[in-house]
Amino acid sequence: MFRFELHHQDAGTAARLSTFHTPHGPVQMPAFMPVGTQGTVKGLTAQQIAATGAQMVLSNTYHLALRPGDEVVRDLGGLHAMMGWSGPILTDSGGFQVYSLAERTVVSEEQAVFRSHIDGSTIELSPERAIAIQQNLGSDVAMVLDHVVALPCPPEQLREATERSIRWAARCQAVAQRPDQCLFAIVQGGLDPVLRVDCAERLASMNFPGYAVGGLSVGETPDQMRETLQATMPAMLADRPRYLMGVGRPEDLLMAIGLGIDLFDCVMPTRNGRNALAFTDAGPIRLRNLKHQRDPKPLESGCPCAACRHSRGYLRHLFVAGEMLGPILLTIHNLTYYQRLLAASREAIAADRFAQFCTERRAGWSDAG
Amino acid sequence: MFRFELHHQDAGTAARLSTFHTPHGPVQMPAFMPVGTQGTVKGLTAQQIAATGAQMVLSNTYHLALRPGDEVVRDLGGLHAMMGWSGPILTDSGGFQVYSLAERTVVSEEQAVFRSHIDGSTIELSPERAIAIQQNLGSDVAMVLDHVVALPCPPEQLREATERSIRWAARCQAVAQRPDQCLFAIVQGGLDPVLRVDCAERLASMNFPGYAVGGLSVGETPDQMRETLQATMPAMLADRPRYLMGVGRPEDLLMAIGLGIDLFDCVMPTRNGRNALAFTDAGPIRLRNLKHQRDPKPLESGCPCAACRHSRGYLRHLFVAGEMLGPILLTIHNLTYYQRLLAASREAIAADRFAQFCTERRAGWSDAG
Repeated sequence: MFRFELHHQDAGTAARLSTFHTPHGPVQMPAFMPVGTQGTVKGLTAQQIAATGAQMVLSNTYHLALRPGDEVVRDLGGLHAMMGWSGPILTDSGGFQVYSLAERTVVSEEQAVFRSHIDGSTIELSPERAIAIQQNLGSDVAMVLDHVVALPCPPEQLREATERSIRWAARCQAVAQRPDQCLFAIVQGGLDPVLRVDCAERLASMNFPGYAVGGLSVGETPDQMRETLQATMPAMLADRPRYLMGVGRPEDLLMAIGLGIDLFDCVMPTRNGRNALAFTDAGPIRLRNLKHQRDPKPLESGCPCAACRHSRGYLRHLFVAGEMLGPILLTIHNLTYYQRLLAASREAIAADRFAQFCTERRAGWSDAG
Repeated sequence: MFRFELHHQDAGTAARLSTFHTPHGPVQMPAFMPVGTQGTVKGLTAQQIAATGAQMVLSNTYHLALRPGDEVVRDLGGLHAMMGWSGPILTDSGGFQVYSLAERTVVSEEQAVFRSHIDGSTIELSPERAIAIQQNLGSDVAMVLDHVVALPCPPEQLREATERSIRWAARCQAVAQRPDQCLFAIVQGGLDPVLRVDCAERLASMNFPGYAVGGLSVGETPDQMRETLQATMPAMLADRPRYLMGVGRPEDLLMAIGLGIDLFDCVMPTRNGRNALAFTDAGPIRLRNLKHQRDPKPLESGCPCAACRHSRGYLRHLFVAGEMLGPILLTIHNLTYYQRLLAASREAIAADRFAQFCTERRAGWSDAG
């Protein structure tokens, strides 16, 4: 039910063009998944998500397990039926949220024990439970539970968390049962290239149908992220999807695509959209700025999204007046921007001009005032 | 550019089927206008508003004059261009908001002087200014500025406010200039049938292209509203649109249609939708109720709206989780419900069975638990 087709590798970079087939349809890669944390991409109907060009969405195990509860999701027909989203869905494992959101987390070999950020109740998340939840959710791609640590981290502690992540990946693999759901492993190892390569190789030997790079975009510099990714990529199997979790800015996406990453998710376009920041080829626009008050231009000429049927002046008014439609329209625009960036990247790879494409885009972005 | 076509009057009631032609297209009446206070029906794109079946929307002079300012709206191409709404638009005059929202309002013969509810700044609204603002907004239908009073009101004060409303209507009429904008008068008179009839007759003699009944739905009982409307309707010209401002619940709409009202606006479907209350043929549903947690049924079977592609369980989850999509979907559902109610009313009038239709609908609503 799952198949990865590698179509072409760019002549000048490691960027690659591929299709990932899932029970809910194919994903043309490189691809970007909008984040639908609580079973909804904030403010958008399923129809509006599809209209941005999104092929696959991400939803969060941690949040859905807390609310409405994974058994409720199952009883409502699973995540696809509940959201009304007929395309592929990937669910994370909760590892990152246990690290970033939960209160008083204690990680033992058995499991993570933490307090809910919603009501303070105690919750136990083991690798087996992370898989059981994701099986109830019914996503196309489930992720193994990993042990994410804050950086910088003492070497011994980082090594232990990475070793534990590998053991937990094996426990996840042992209990994953749904034939219509595949399980991706997550390479950890902080900013240590040796640890990263070791982790990637050992997970590769376990033959997962897809691999993610986790534990990045947690506060390190862009250079550190790139160097870590550069060191890790050669150790990641080339014949399966490679997913960089939680990244990132448009320039981060181009950098990672150039290193051979196929799949992304990030709250950047949605969260920034809700905060009145719009991405464009000429760099970001801050809509609250007074200079947009009477500006009749759309955010980006030629953009087919619902926001770009309006003037910057109207969009600014919506934010200043505290109207929901402002965040909604900018979320639509930013997701459309990301999808168009990915579509253009795929075209550039197909034409063996990805490096040139990156140079052109970066020049446009840095022109911004 | 404006024409009112009366097609048919129901055999058993005063309900009527008509078309009101405007520069932005025809409106099949009886019709309901969703309220887009600040130039946006809260949470909905123009495309989503149209998908509910809405033909014409209302926007508020008071709010737009304060923010972003009517000259800004004009500079952004007028309200139609700014909102991206290509159908007809009606703007109220600000009279009701000066009464209900503004702080420290002082009404003299010349104008109303009040403080903005946003920043406390002093604003003067004369009949001439109300028209100038609406001309900048560029709505299809403008409303005269009226002097709305709180009920109950001493008879002498009510009479004076009603007389002033008539004088202000004449001042509005004297300065209204846009050929692509028509001006409706507003019948006032509180709950006094004699005053209402007098006001209606005197405004009728001034030959406005349309007439509204104002100053109702301000705290009186449903019986008082019906009795006042019953007394007023015979004095309102039959050959022009008759608009009941700010009304109301589904049962109020049927009552008023039966008395010969053609046009409505109300925040009831949108405001209630944002508060998790959904209208259905079996009465209202409160989505936050725990009993909906695992309910796979849509709000209303057979409803074509975007909300009804989802389960009640999912909609409840969205509200409990504080997700914007909950208010958005329930707004869509409630507006669709109102539009379907109006469309069914028009069909019933055409078939000379409006009274029976009302009986059937009321029976369904009162079945609610």
